[in-house]
Amino acid sequence: MKRAIGVIDSGVGGLTVAYELMRQLPKEELVYVGDTLRCPYGPRPEHEVRQYTKEMIQFLMKKNIKMVVIACNTATAFALEELKNILPIPIIGVIQPGARAAIKSTKNQQIGIIGTEGTIRSNAYTTALAQINADLDVTALACPLFVPMVEKGILKGDQAEQVVMETLRPLKKTTNIDTLILGCTHYPLLGPTIQRVMGEDVNIISSSEETARETSTILEINALLYQGTREPVHHFYTTGDLDLFKKISHGIFHEEKKELPQVHIEKIDL
Amino acid sequence: MKRAIGVIDSGVGGLTVAYELMRQLPKEELVYVGDTLRCPYGPRPEHEVRQYTKEMIQFLMKKNIKMVVIACNTATAFALEELKNILPIPIIGVIQPGARAAIKSTKNQQIGIIGTEGTIRSNAYTTALAQINADLDVTALACPLFVPMVEKGILKGDQAEQVVMETLRPLKKTTNIDTLILGCTHYPLLGPTIQRVMGEDVNIISSSEETARETSTILEINALLYQGTREPVHHFYTTGDLDLFKKISHGIFHEEKKELPQVHIEKIDL
Repeated sequence: MKRAIGVIDSGVGGLTVAYELMRQLPKEELVYVGDTLRCPYGPRPEHEVRQYTKEMIQFLMKKNIKMVVIACNTATAFALEELKNILPIPIIGVIQPGARAAIKSTKNQQIGIIGTEGTIRSNAYTTALAQINADLDVTALACPLFVPMVEKGILKGDQAEQVVMETLRPLKKTTNIDTLILGCTHYPLLGPTIQRVMGEDVNIISSSEETARETSTILEINALLYQGTREPVHHFYTTGDLDLFKKISHGIFHEEKKELPQVHIEKIDL
Repeated sequence: MKRAIGVIDSGVGGLTVAYELMRQLPKEELVYVGDTLRCPYGPRPEHEVRQYTKEMIQFLMKKNIKMVVIACNTATAFALEELKNILPIPIIGVIQPGARAAIKSTKNQQIGIIGTEGTIRSNAYTTALAQINADLDVTALACPLFVPMVEKGILKGDQAEQVVMETLRPLKKTTNIDTLILGCTHYPLLGPTIQRVMGEDVNIISSSEETARETSTILEINALLYQGTREPVHHFYTTGDLDLFKKISHGIFHEEKKELPQVHIEKIDL
């Protein structure tokens, strides 16, 4: 039997991780849960985020998944460590893969991180980076307007450019970073605009891309890669508005892929 | 007690992996064994390569290492799978990390691989890539002159440029690859020349860099990252000529690092 990779997120941001998983692991099947009903997790107390995260994982465990990907920065920051110790299958979050990719990328040891206010306040990236290399010069910046902008579908054009430019000005003006971590799974959708504003010399790290890459590593070292030839069929579940979720998914998966993968989308209660 | 990462190679090529491990994991200690006496492994029969690889690992296991990195393509191709099943600590090779990074990188699904004749003949990269994505267009090319050139210290200048240009001509002329895997741990030393010859649009993947990155992943998920503050002291062992090994190590570690890490080098018999 084909066992899927379970992906959980507070809503639709994690769809960029799902997109990268489909791109980098095209034989694998996904089961995705987006808790859009209770999104955003950012402003919620820690115990609540932990509880919601566990509810999503309980739902997924009944689907016989082989691995869990926490595609949400807040849930990673608050729940990953505890879940690692209690789950019988491998689990990863979105923070450490981005941190490791940035350490690999930087030449001048100057790294920038952008994320939601919650993620930046949690210091999760700064901690993950310092755990590996204490001599990095790290600048973190909250970008509170990016998620609402993405949720409205404003990804490029004058308005997007303007907001991105205004928000990132402090990073451009006062630092000499050569590497910038997109510490929020919504941000890859603004990737080209962020790259243009920061300039070609800054290497932009997408935590979504990097998390998919490390999911591949973990499946391989645990001998869990699917080796058959059956085409994948993905199942996506949302706790919120079904039509909105479908529309956003379609936008993300249709952006670059000529052939849309087979995705079933359903509404659930957790 | 601080436990080191064990690194094994047929000789000096794996020093580029060691360099990347020191750069990306600056708190960690290394114990390196280079079997320069019996180098190269490429032309040897499979059972011999397996035997030599095991001898190096037996030597390292007495040093209380916490993980093994096989920094040699031939040894990875022939011995990794078997060793995975018998070693009580995590082990990785250089082939899969390069393959995964290439899959992450490519946009047009056209990937090139260059390596020694042995590595290319073994199809190890092609197999690793196809295991994850069957729809890639992969072109492999043996570059028999690169290793001897690097061993002579010819890394840039007219002669290097000439040899690299001549060798890579088939890849440039007949393919449209957007990603090129350096499938030999010597090749990162020719990296800038290879990049210039292939052009800026081709993303060059260093299996040394990628292997160090995944070593970081594996240490973290196994809770094996060193969390103390003691400065690392590295131990390097060669089975061959001590002075030559010292000279080449110095060349590699001194290239970009202002401060040379503390490295002790000794000659051993396996």
